[in-house]
Amino acid sequence: MEVTRQNFKDSLNAVYSAIEEADFLAIDGEFSGISDGPNVSALTNGLDTPEERYTKLKKHSMDFLLFQFGICTFKYDQTKSKYITKPFNFYVFPKPFNRTSPDLKFICQSSSIDFLASQGFDFNKVFRHGIPYLNQDEEVQLREQTEERRNQHANGVGTPSFISPSSKGPAHVPEEHKDYINRVIGKVETLFTNSEKTLDLEPCTGFQRKLIYQTLNWKFPKGLHVETVETEKKERYIQVIRVDDEERKLREQQKREREQEEVNDAVGFSRVIHAISKSGKLVVGHNMLLDVMHTIHQFYCPLPEDLQDFKEVTMCVFPRLLDTKLMASTQPFKEMITNTSLAELEKQVKESPFKSPQVETAEGFNSYDTAQEQLHEAGYDAYITGLCFISMANYLGSFLTPPKAYISSSSKVVEPFFNKLFLMRIIDIPYLNVTGPDLQPKRDHVLYVTFPKEWKTSDLYQLFSAFGNIQVSWLDDTSAFVSLSQTDQVQIAMNTSRYAESYRIQTYAEYIKGKQQLQDKEKVGHTPKSWGEDGWMKPHYTSATFGYPKGLRKRCISPVQGEQGAGDAPITDGWSHYSYPDSTGSKKMKTDDKGGQANAEAIESKTSEGWLKTADSSDSMGSGPVPDEEGSPEGNDAEGTVTWQQAPAVHGRKGQKKQKKKRKGAESTPSLFEVPEVW
Amino acid sequence: MEVTRQNFKDSLNAVYSAIEEADFLAIDGEFSGISDGPNVSALTNGLDTPEERYTKLKKHSMDFLLFQFGICTFKYDQTKSKYITKPFNFYVFPKPFNRTSPDLKFICQSSSIDFLASQGFDFNKVFRHGIPYLNQDEEVQLREQTEERRNQHANGVGTPSFISPSSKGPAHVPEEHKDYINRVIGKVETLFTNSEKTLDLEPCTGFQRKLIYQTLNWKFPKGLHVETVETEKKERYIQVIRVDDEERKLREQQKREREQEEVNDAVGFSRVIHAISKSGKLVVGHNMLLDVMHTIHQFYCPLPEDLQDFKEVTMCVFPRLLDTKLMASTQPFKEMITNTSLAELEKQVKESPFKSPQVETAEGFNSYDTAQEQLHEAGYDAYITGLCFISMANYLGSFLTPPKAYISSSSKVVEPFFNKLFLMRIIDIPYLNVTGPDLQPKRDHVLYVTFPKEWKTSDLYQLFSAFGNIQVSWLDDTSAFVSLSQTDQVQIAMNTSRYAESYRIQTYAEYIKGKQQLQDKEKVGHTPKSWGEDGWMKPHYTSATFGYPKGLRKRCISPVQGEQGAGDAPITDGWSHYSYPDSTGSKKMKTDDKGGQANAEAIESKTSEGWLKTADSSDSMGSGPVPDEEGSPEGNDAEGTVTWQQAPAVHGRKGQKKQKKKRKGAESTPSLFEVPEVW
Repeated sequence: MEVTRQNFKDSLNAVYSAIEEADFLAIDGEFSGISDGPNVSALTNGLDTPEERYTKLKKHSMDFLLFQFGICTFKYDQTKSKYITKPFNFYVFPKPFNRTSPDLKFICQSSSIDFLASQGFDFNKVFRHGIPYLNQDEEVQLREQTEERRNQHANGVGTPSFISPSSKGPAHVPEEHKDYINRVIGKVETLFTNSEKTLDLEPCTGFQRKLIYQTLNWKFPKGLHVETVETEKKERYIQVIRVDDEERKLREQQKREREQEEVNDAVGFSRVIHAISKSGKLVVGHNMLLDVMHTIHQFYCPLPEDLQDFKEVTMCVFPRLLDTKLMASTQPFKEMITNTSLAELEKQVKESPFKSPQVETAEGFNSYDTAQEQLHEAGYDAYITGLCFISMANYLGSFLTPPKAYISSSSKVVEPFFNKLFLMRIIDIPYLNVTGPDLQPKRDHVLYVTFPKEWKTSDLYQLFSAFGNIQVSWLDDTSAFVSLSQTDQVQIAMNTSRYAESYRIQTYAEYIKGKQQLQDKEKVGHTPKSWGEDGWMKPHYTSATFGYPKGLRKRCISPVQGEQGAGDAPITDGWSHYSYPDSTGSKKMKTDDKGGQANAEAIESKTSEGWLKTADSSDSMGSGPVPDEEGSPEGNDAEGTVTWQQAPAVHGRKGQKKQKKKRKGAESTPSLFEVPEVW
Repeated sequence: MEVTRQNFKDSLNAVYSAIEEADFLAIDGEFSGISDGPNVSALTNGLDTPEERYTKLKKHSMDFLLFQFGICTFKYDQTKSKYITKPFNFYVFPKPFNRTSPDLKFICQSSSIDFLASQGFDFNKVFRHGIPYLNQDEEVQLREQTEERRNQHANGVGTPSFISPSSKGPAHVPEEHKDYINRVIGKVETLFTNSEKTLDLEPCTGFQRKLIYQTLNWKFPKGLHVETVETEKKERYIQVIRVDDEERKLREQQKREREQEEVNDAVGFSRVIHAISKSGKLVVGHNMLLDVMHTIHQFYCPLPEDLQDFKEVTMCVFPRLLDTKLMASTQPFKEMITNTSLAELEKQVKESPFKSPQVETAEGFNSYDTAQEQLHEAGYDAYITGLCFISMANYLGSFLTPPKAYISSSSKVVEPFFNKLFLMRIIDIPYLNVTGPDLQPKRDHVLYVTFPKEWKTSDLYQLFSAFGNIQVSWLDDTSAFVSLSQTDQVQIAMNTSRYAESYRIQTYAEYIKGKQQLQDKEKVGHTPKSWGEDGWMKPHYTSATFGYPKGLRKRCISPVQGEQGAGDAPITDGWSHYSYPDSTGSKKMKTDDKGGQANAEAIESKTSEGWLKTADSSDSMGSGPVPDEEGSPEGNDAEGTVTWQQAPAVHGRKGQKKQKKKRKGAESTPSLFEVPEVW
């Protein structure tokens, strides 16, 4: 169902009930761009820490607009043995709802816009008929303003936006308006003597309306109802109605209801997100970190500085998340799915050993046809994301004893994937762990190298040619990470570089330390973000205290416990899901395809060892990750108590046939749930 | 004529010849927003200096996109006694033309977008079919790149974007690509032995193409033509063609021509602007400062820091400009035209004493009907801007002796308006003088006041209540200019405020001095602009030396000499022309319509005296402005030697009947041309 400002109110109940009845729902967003700073390959450096990645995305991606939001709800029909889907495709636009409302600015990135245009994206629908929205602060502000105005009207002291605290007396009417105001008073006096009940004044300026309100409230404290009305041409004029006390009350009541309705209209699309949060339903997305960040940023609150705070807000807004790109990149799927982009994934989960899920579009909803790809329409992308999730979940069910063809979205089989968001292109940290600490891989084989800006990847290959295979992760024009294949080479490289003039080498640890010191210094010097200084992508409302919107924390549910996963990062074209047509390497960043090349090598060389180090270092997190790497999903129990998950050290050695690669396994420690097999 | 990427090349000759044959042309731009910083009332403070205004617009308006450009050419047909018009409406969008081209980001302002949407603006046309463009630096860069690549191809050393200086030898083929490359070599070798002439390799990555180029150039320096070709699906593959020397040359030649054509396509809409510059024709616009700034910024070069440099670039790009809003706000029109917004002006110049100009749309062009307003379509706005100019110019002709019904665009009658751009909402400086120093009004009756952010305009009125009528010009949340009606009150106000705690008062001179000191300090500390640091709205190309594009200065014509004008600033809804629906006062800026009110008062109180001071202070500029304020346009000579312009002191006392207001006139000094009567 396509939802714009024109049918939003009429559709809202359908949206609410779809969410309420759903087993799970899938979402997807389309944005006006990806990065306003570095290009994508620098934005997603292979050796980012989760904090760095979050900070970069927050800084460089949040001033774009999420202008299309897809939701597809999935409800399992036991009798039909199929999912009933309700896809919604919302067009969203921050149309200012009145003269004092925030006038948001957002960025468009030409390549993203061009890409969406080439996919037939309808910009006119967004800009002409997009549904407005408010974040929680704005909503609170607006409700307070409305309340305040109403109280002041009721007390007969005029409209608050015009009244300064110092002028409670009769209105100060400037000389040049005195004639005009006197004429108005004359007309109103006539209203009391003749048979007319209503007096429509001519359209006039806001300043004149202010004067009229003040004057009439002062001169005629009783017997009049005064209201601003808009003509079809959007001209505002004042309507004066002669009323008795009862009618005055009735009219005030009606006005209040209209005002409430107007506030609700202004909150607009945010109401849908509130409903999702409240439902606590599983929300599935594909490579969904940016979707989640944008959703919170646009419809809840400005993103917190700190990653830990972001995780907490995320759990409030989306109590349960699942990222199909992470799922597809994780064992047992990793071996079967070579390309985890949404479009490719959708094709692959139709083929054996997967089964296309049985789905049916609910009556009254347009059904999407996956044969006619409508990729990058958010509603369609949400729909196929849900399909991918179902296929993969059901595939996991085939390992149960007895095998199950249908796996519910709350099954323990999929639980290990909850609340882990895919981290794109990070070599050794596959996901952001929303409900716990993140993996901390050792990076003592990594060097931070600075060099003249003429250097290209090949120069780095040459510089390190003595050390065999290396991986290069560009940071900017004059710096990159170089990962050596063996840690003990690091000291040799450091030594030989000591007297080099054209380049400089630091260990990863030194680099991190230096960066930390710089940040601490900056915090002392309190460099404010240049963006947002003058209300950028934030409303012009002043928010006295920064913090999460009222009521958000209350809505939190306990974080899902205990699962830990780990592995290497798969490199796929994930950004294409983010409306990025191609890795647009600019000359300056020298992404002469060596970058991707280096990354590809990185995966090859890190597939087995890389992960084990990570696993070790994350032991401190409570439940050790993936102890039994050769164990593939199987089970001898009813759904929800899958053996290999519960006690892999005991039952884990069956079903090795699915495994193609052997890895050195760390010691296994039993824990309640573990990621079945990662990477 | 509507021009998009789809018909641009086919239309270009029509555009060129329309410009070439035109007597003058009118332009108009539509932008994606106005201000990314302060709201419009703060952006256009009534007491800005021209430098301040330029700096603010440069800082806060240039990251928006000029996405529709209207040009209407006007050619006078003597035999028909009417103008033949050719209106063009161009959709413009910085579509990246290849993977290494700039990926521009631009800002959209919700209120502007919403306003354009309400006017039926077609965003899909912009984003799907907008004509690309390059500024001069980008064009030079692209031509150099193309040249370089061609030379390297010709020398058989591979493609420059992939080749690092250090690898002139055989390509270093990474292990995992060796098989692939060897297969390619095998296929190419077969090409030499069988009857096939052409070999299409499979689509592959850029990195693989690089390896293939390098390898083939090394292994088969002769006898092959190697080229990258794109499939319909935009996949790139390599085509290898077996050729003899002659055919190789021919193919190289064809390729060169294709490349030139591609570069021209990329330069795109900028070619139209170049043609206008080259033509030297009079370019008419309505409230055109932002149009001029955007045009230069987008199609020529980043705007210079300094206003004087901007004026020079402007004269290079548009050697002759005329602003109809300035014209309409100047005597004799000021008295007759109450609202100088384009829409209202267009209506008024149809009525007596004006005459609707006789115009005819050229064959093959869609004619606009002014009865069906298509306001805010750039082509239409350009068209009616031209109509307004003709009507006003012809009206001036009625004062000539003998009266002339047709005034050419190069007539001396309109010359006083050349190269003066309307400065919106500045109380005492009506225009930016592009070809000379700007007016420097005395502002010794102005105070700079800072106060707590709770203060509103009424608090300022109260504070200064002892001084009679004041004007308030808000600067930001906690500061404003307050203009007193008499200069000798300034010292009293300063004295009484000495011990005030909640507010602080400085004279205007002190304020300017402090600001200057701050700027000097900042320059020493070299705070770079936060915008543009990472290529924002500038291409990702690095520009080694900032400066005006080559060839720009050469194209300069001598600035038009000698005219000086002056007057008070009229306050109208000028921004509505800039797609700004309404003075969107945010709560924070407290534009509770007092702002407009204050401005309105400003005009009233400044109408006569204000100007004279300005006139005095600008005497130093060489030719004194408007000495004889009672003299109205008249003449006893043929067109081009209008008496009142040449020697107002001698002939100036005739024709007083047209004047409605008497003013105290300063002593008149003869000068070659003067503004007939300003304000």
